[in-house]
Amino acid sequence: MSKTEPVETIKETTDIKELALSIAQKAKEASRLLAIASPHLKNQALLSMADGIVSESEFIVGENRKDIEDALRKGISGAFVDRLTLTDSRIKLMAEGIRQVAALNDPVGEIVKMWKRPNGLLVGKMRIPLGVIGIIYESRPNVTADASALCIKAGNGVILRGGSEAIRTNLAIGKILKDALRQNGLPEDAIQIVPIADRSFVLEMLKLEEYIDLIIPRGGEGLIRFVSENSRIPVLKHYKGVCHVFVDESADFEMAEKICINAKVQRPGVCNAMETLLVHENIASEFLPLIVRKLEERGVEIRGCKRTKRIVPHVKEATEEDWYTEYLDLILSVKVVKDIEEAIEHIERYGSKHTEAIVTQNYRNAQVFVNSVNSSTVLVNASTRFSDGFELGLGAEIGISTSKLHAFGPMGVEELTTTKFVIYGNGQIRI
Amino acid sequence: MSKTEPVETIKETTDIKELALSIAQKAKEASRLLAIASPHLKNQALLSMADGIVSESEFIVGENRKDIEDALRKGISGAFVDRLTLTDSRIKLMAEGIRQVAALNDPVGEIVKMWKRPNGLLVGKMRIPLGVIGIIYESRPNVTADASALCIKAGNGVILRGGSEAIRTNLAIGKILKDALRQNGLPEDAIQIVPIADRSFVLEMLKLEEYIDLIIPRGGEGLIRFVSENSRIPVLKHYKGVCHVFVDESADFEMAEKICINAKVQRPGVCNAMETLLVHENIASEFLPLIVRKLEERGVEIRGCKRTKRIVPHVKEATEEDWYTEYLDLILSVKVVKDIEEAIEHIERYGSKHTEAIVTQNYRNAQVFVNSVNSSTVLVNASTRFSDGFELGLGAEIGISTSKLHAFGPMGVEELTTTKFVIYGNGQIRI
Repeated sequence: MSKTEPVETIKETTDIKELALSIAQKAKEASRLLAIASPHLKNQALLSMADGIVSESEFIVGENRKDIEDALRKGISGAFVDRLTLTDSRIKLMAEGIRQVAALNDPVGEIVKMWKRPNGLLVGKMRIPLGVIGIIYESRPNVTADASALCIKAGNGVILRGGSEAIRTNLAIGKILKDALRQNGLPEDAIQIVPIADRSFVLEMLKLEEYIDLIIPRGGEGLIRFVSENSRIPVLKHYKGVCHVFVDESADFEMAEKICINAKVQRPGVCNAMETLLVHENIASEFLPLIVRKLEERGVEIRGCKRTKRIVPHVKEATEEDWYTEYLDLILSVKVVKDIEEAIEHIERYGSKHTEAIVTQNYRNAQVFVNSVNSSTVLVNASTRFSDGFELGLGAEIGISTSKLHAFGPMGVEELTTTKFVIYGNGQIRI
Repeated sequence: MSKTEPVETIKETTDIKELALSIAQKAKEASRLLAIASPHLKNQALLSMADGIVSESEFIVGENRKDIEDALRKGISGAFVDRLTLTDSRIKLMAEGIRQVAALNDPVGEIVKMWKRPNGLLVGKMRIPLGVIGIIYESRPNVTADASALCIKAGNGVILRGGSEAIRTNLAIGKILKDALRQNGLPEDAIQIVPIADRSFVLEMLKLEEYIDLIIPRGGEGLIRFVSENSRIPVLKHYKGVCHVFVDESADFEMAEKICINAKVQRPGVCNAMETLLVHENIASEFLPLIVRKLEERGVEIRGCKRTKRIVPHVKEATEEDWYTEYLDLILSVKVVKDIEEAIEHIERYGSKHTEAIVTQNYRNAQVFVNSVNSSTVLVNASTRFSDGFELGLGAEIGISTSKLHAFGPMGVEELTTTKFVIYGNGQIRI
């Protein structure tokens, strides 16, 4: 039986403001040491974290069970409890994720570029950690481990404020992660698990711009809006993913069918699933009956524009609202467009700047789509489901940004860094 | 005599909110066209702007004179009026600045990197414009031309809200810039000069996160705080530059002297001038009398720590407040430190993350300083005055950021862009 002692949650405090400040200050202080820690030491700590999570899985599952019992007592529903629940195999996956982060290249200290000025100054841009990252998320406890690993790898302190229903699970995971830091001579304060469920803590945290450099909210649109509207700290986020696939006149039908089905059906509940299909009018009467049948066979409800309904009359008619909607479900809106320009305009008007794909064999249209579509990820002849840090080769993903500042699109370890100018001279002065 | 007609300022409006919205919407719409304009066309427009500013200098000077007369009537002081005043030679410099921007590499469309995934997907990051940039500045009218040129080069729309005292000058310059866009087939709405002096316009503008992608305030700390506190749009800024030079034990005295004098005296009123000198204790008794005398000869007032005063007793004693102060004047605080670690701690505690330099011949200390100092520009054996986009080779500068998100340090044309993922496939789907 595990002898690890659980970390107590705080039920009440006289001063939430003071608690938030103290947590942020500790994280900041620790982040200074982590910023100059060697890649070797950080990787050792990450591997210890992975080992610790597996060897202490009994302790984690025990704490998790208390959270689950509380949730059930409150009458919370099945899908929610499923997301909250940790099993041995989920714990092993968490550990595996941390090991993968350990194996990534260390971004800190990389000289992104360097050039020589006419006066002999050597000017470079060096990658450095951001400082302290605040992660505000809902109840999937694996985020506690994933996000910590990515932040530590990039040399950042991290403050984790998970859903209140998972608080004991998160504190248990956090304890093991912190132990691993300490055992490897790194400051355990670099990981802070917020020990209080009170939502006013989040409000206090969002004011601490002096200590926290970046906030990443992960969860539903409501959480993200709440964080954005109340934060004085920069926020990296996406509200939703209304992703489009445009099947051009020249598309290979077999490829288009494969991509559309994958983009819609493979995992409909995620942000990079297709929500709207745009079809070129010259192929609509041939392609639409085909694709609608295939999608309906897989349980997809189709909501079509007027022209779509003329071709496949049995489908529901789409409303104006549909074009803006992220269904996160087996529902698809379908529109027939005159040409690529109308497709691009539709995306610009109704899209969420997340991910869009074109299926085409026309060179000019592929290039026009890539250059004109104003979204964080633009694909030619591939499924929107590839818009994901791991799939794109970033190694892992801390989130996806549809704000253009700092990072746009899937964010990996590199996006948790910034660059500073480093300049080597030999006595140069400005004239 | 010039026949160009001045643009009328708006004295009153029933609805400032509506005006701000309409300006921002026009800029956004135009920015979409500018984003896909060819480098050639943008450069042609920039060269037309430069030509137009010179050929219409009589018109600009005439409008500028009206602003000056108003300022004098309001009893506004000499230095302010000097900054506001445009002469033929200042106008020529403005045109030259625009030509230099035209000569820069076009950042838009650059593939920053590209790699192949195991499944054959070709994944790249392409540089794209941010969209619409809002510049809020005080009364130097050359910012109108400089900032417009940089924003247009990077494919962005720009909304310029200069000081109310320069409103006619800015509208005159803006008119010429917009004419140049139109004459070259580009949307003139990409440049918007705010035609109303009312400060409540700024407040409305800062709410339009849907249309404006980035705000850059340029001016005093008061303006910058006002903008930061009221903006829902990301802001790139620095509050102040409390820049340090640390003269290490092993410094070459002649080099240290040259760098310190240049950093303090060459242009004391700017953000990259040295405000605090840190001296290693082992050389303090030899170096301090020397450097203090040289600086005092140049009119610099010295405020020293207790140990400094023991070596050069005639200087004023520095207060705690001094270490935080950006004098922007011929005043320098001086502190004797035990070693490089104390120097770095002092900078971390009192600094502004702007620019710091070390003068040393010790390899280890140079590397420790470069790696540990948490500022946007860190120099070895060179003057802090090089912390400037032009001097570092960025071509031109839109400002300096001491916030770590998106850009940290001097910002050029590249920092007015972001990247999107562009992915070329041949039918890949996610498994």
